Amino acid sequence: MNDVFAHIAANQERYVKRLQALLQQPSVAAQNLGIQETAAHVVGLLEALGAQVQLIPTAGQPVVVGVIKGKTDKTLSFYNHYDVQPAEPLELWESDPWGGAIRDGRLYARGAADNKGDLVARINAVESYLAVHEALPCTLKFIVEGEEEVGSPHLEAFAEHHADLIHADGCIWEFGSKDLQNRPLVTLGLKGICYVELRLSCARSDLHSSWAAVVPNAAWRLTWALSTLKDPDERVRIAGFYDEVERPNAEDLEALEALGFDERGHKEQFGIENYVNALSDTPLLEKLYFEPTCTLCGFDSGYTGEGAKTVSPHEARAKLDFRLVPDQDPGRVVELLRKHLDLHGFVDVELSVLAAERAGRTPLDAPLGRVVMDTAKDIYDVSPVLVPIAPGSGPIYALCQRFGIPGVSTGCAYSGSQVHAPNENIRLKDFERGTQHIAAIVERFAQT
Amino acid sequence: MNDVFAHIAANQERYVKRLQALLQQPSVAAQNLGIQETAAHVVGLLEALGAQVQLIPTAGQPVVVGVIKGKTDKTLSFYNHYDVQPAEPLELWESDPWGGAIRDGRLYARGAADNKGDLVARINAVESYLAVHEALPCTLKFIVEGEEEVGSPHLEAFAEHHADLIHADGCIWEFGSKDLQNRPLVTLGLKGICYVELRLSCARSDLHSSWAAVVPNAAWRLTWALSTLKDPDERVRIAGFYDEVERPNAEDLEALEALGFDERGHKEQFGIENYVNALSDTPLLEKLYFEPTCTLCGFDSGYTGEGAKTVSPHEARAKLDFRLVPDQDPGRVVELLRKHLDLHGFVDVELSVLAAERAGRTPLDAPLGRVVMDTAKDIYDVSPVLVPIAPGSGPIYALCQRFGIPGVSTGCAYSGSQVHAPNENIRLKDFERGTQHIAAIVERFAQT
Repeated sequence: MNDVFAHIAANQERYVKRLQALLQQPSVAAQNLGIQETAAHVVGLLEALGAQVQLIPTAGQPVVVGVIKGKTDKTLSFYNHYDVQPAEPLELWESDPWGGAIRDGRLYARGAADNKGDLVARINAVESYLAVHEALPCTLKFIVEGEEEVGSPHLEAFAEHHADLIHADGCIWEFGSKDLQNRPLVTLGLKGICYVELRLSCARSDLHSSWAAVVPNAAWRLTWALSTLKDPDERVRIAGFYDEVERPNAEDLEALEALGFDERGHKEQFGIENYVNALSDTPLLEKLYFEPTCTLCGFDSGYTGEGAKTVSPHEARAKLDFRLVPDQDPGRVVELLRKHLDLHGFVDVELSVLAAERAGRTPLDAPLGRVVMDTAKDIYDVSPVLVPIAPGSGPIYALCQRFGIPGVSTGCAYSGSQVHAPNENIRLKDFERGTQHIAAIVERFAQT
Repeated sequence: MNDVFAHIAANQERYVKRLQALLQQPSVAAQNLGIQETAAHVVGLLEALGAQVQLIPTAGQPVVVGVIKGKTDKTLSFYNHYDVQPAEPLELWESDPWGGAIRDGRLYARGAADNKGDLVARINAVESYLAVHEALPCTLKFIVEGEEEVGSPHLEAFAEHHADLIHADGCIWEFGSKDLQNRPLVTLGLKGICYVELRLSCARSDLHSSWAAVVPNAAWRLTWALSTLKDPDERVRIAGFYDEVERPNAEDLEALEALGFDERGHKEQFGIENYVNALSDTPLLEKLYFEPTCTLCGFDSGYTGEGAKTVSPHEARAKLDFRLVPDQDPGRVVELLRKHLDLHGFVDVELSVLAAERAGRTPLDAPLGRVVMDTAKDIYDVSPVLVPIAPGSGPIYALCQRFGIPGVSTGCAYSGSQVHAPNENIRLKDFERGTQHIAAIVERFAQT
């Protein structure tokens, strides 16, 4: 590997410029901004690698698939996305979110960490590998979608129609960060998600609040409806919601123990005195990694400006996400939620589903996980950490789990990467190491 | 009175122009827009009437007081305000909110109904009375404040310091409308109000919602806190809240009966199928006029834009108003609310008071009420309705009740006046009749 690593080091300046060029191309799926141009840009990068590239249309944004045959048919795929979060609020950025400025060894841009940095690190790793070796030791596939940041609404249908094309013996998932102690995180799956909007309309228009004595108020009704969903003890009260939830087994608990989760450090980071229910130790980690959630992401009704306005709101809207554990079906969660609202007298609350993904988990002892961990140990100064399942979500069920493809996540971000926030950035050192790591994974994977 | 009415009719074109000129002067206390200019404008109008005028500073906006001595010291005061609601949302106006356009016999402008129309009608009535008679039959006082639309925060202190100046034997309150059957409403007092803002901060910043499994969420905590305040049966659950609330007595119930409240018409107006608790008849009116309220005026937390954003909000804010009945003290309500929140584990909810006014009621058999009713009968085509107390609020306690001054409300608006809303307007016919009514009230009041 040393000659590959030397090639990566020698070409790092050019590799960073390649990333900057991709970052300078905005690609916000939520705003339909620059998506086609960025897909074409990615096609160009993969073709330059010598990949067989297809730009495959979906009912939404196209998926770029690039295949590079190696010495064997054994196949490793890379799942990435070329779309990014909106850059707003723009005024909080210290440099242009589409600029890719470098300061203090960090590269700042929307998408630097999530997820263009990882995509380019993977491309760079393949280029350096091929510069030193006559061929790849196994076949590689790049699967780069354009709607991850809006919930990958068309990826499941895409995967179903192109099952042969995306088939692989393992998949390196899109992201990876470091924990507060700077240890690289290797993650074996993701929670699912069910994101819904609740809407309520009680009258024709907002009324002077003197009428609220007798006219139904949408803000109250939605408050009451929501308060039936989850209690202050954080227990979700929707009947049947926990039916498929399994407690972590002995190996899972061991994995949680091994996380070395920095409770105090995260408290400081979040500015909180206590976690919910004053949880600590294993119960805290069990809740974070192995329990489903019901989270109020937004609530909006009536007058929300400064000062007083005596108004009785006729409309109210809330956004809720449920993070789901394996075996929970988002469709069933929506059914249970609808039933719950009806049973509690809130038939007038309208429910619409904005995103739905099932969880996917890769076994703790999966060989691919070991490959990623072992190679990380060789490259990073500190030992990597194996995360049994990410508390976040992604289309891992649609792309991997349902086809029996093990998925493992690793990447170039760190705990200060400000993912989804202003001043998103990666450290250039992590970008180089992440590139090395991918090259090492490819070689080791081919040998297993 | 006929000669006075004739003078009003002959000068109506000029009187409407006088109102238009005042409406063309914006005066939004909430935005500190045009307040000084409008106060000076009102001073000019009252001086032209021959009043002794003072522009009295307060810790907020100045109060204009104009006194015109009459044949006796018996004194009737007019309470009005020269400030108006903000004109926003501007795009919903069919003509300039500061234009005073006339269409189909209606005058459109912010403040036309609330409350510049009434102020100018009263000025016009006095001018016409004095044009026909050598002097007023009693002494008149105009008290015109500039902060009514922001809760009259300095009027109580003003009244305390100038008790002699504002002393009167009766007060004609600022507003008055017609019901859905076009009957003029004569109102004998107002509910009080306590307007509070609840704020909660749970963490340093919004977090990716995957963390919501273990990090407190401000939107949930405020939802839970609010849901303890009032149940879906509309009963306020704050201990002690109803202590001072008295059921209406036999005369009150008779007055409610006499309202001829158009239940079906209001349902159609509001676009609702049912009133709260499916109330009807006397229980509906009792709730509207004689029970205090707890109204959620606004709720704001987290992501409220279109589509999905997986965020766990660190801040949440709600606005609540309590409409109070006589004997309920807004200060005590705030204390009870604080105690309630603490007892229910919401010590972290910050509470700030944005407005506080006690209720004030004038007895059903007060002579001033009879004067206003009897004169209304003479002037309007349909019989007036005596409203025992307005479900809305105003500084009637500070200015009248605490000094034992009976206050009765009547004015130029109608059920389509769009008070506080875009396209606020009055009918010119109501403006003229309202002017006649004031002249008749002055004469009849002097005789009682």
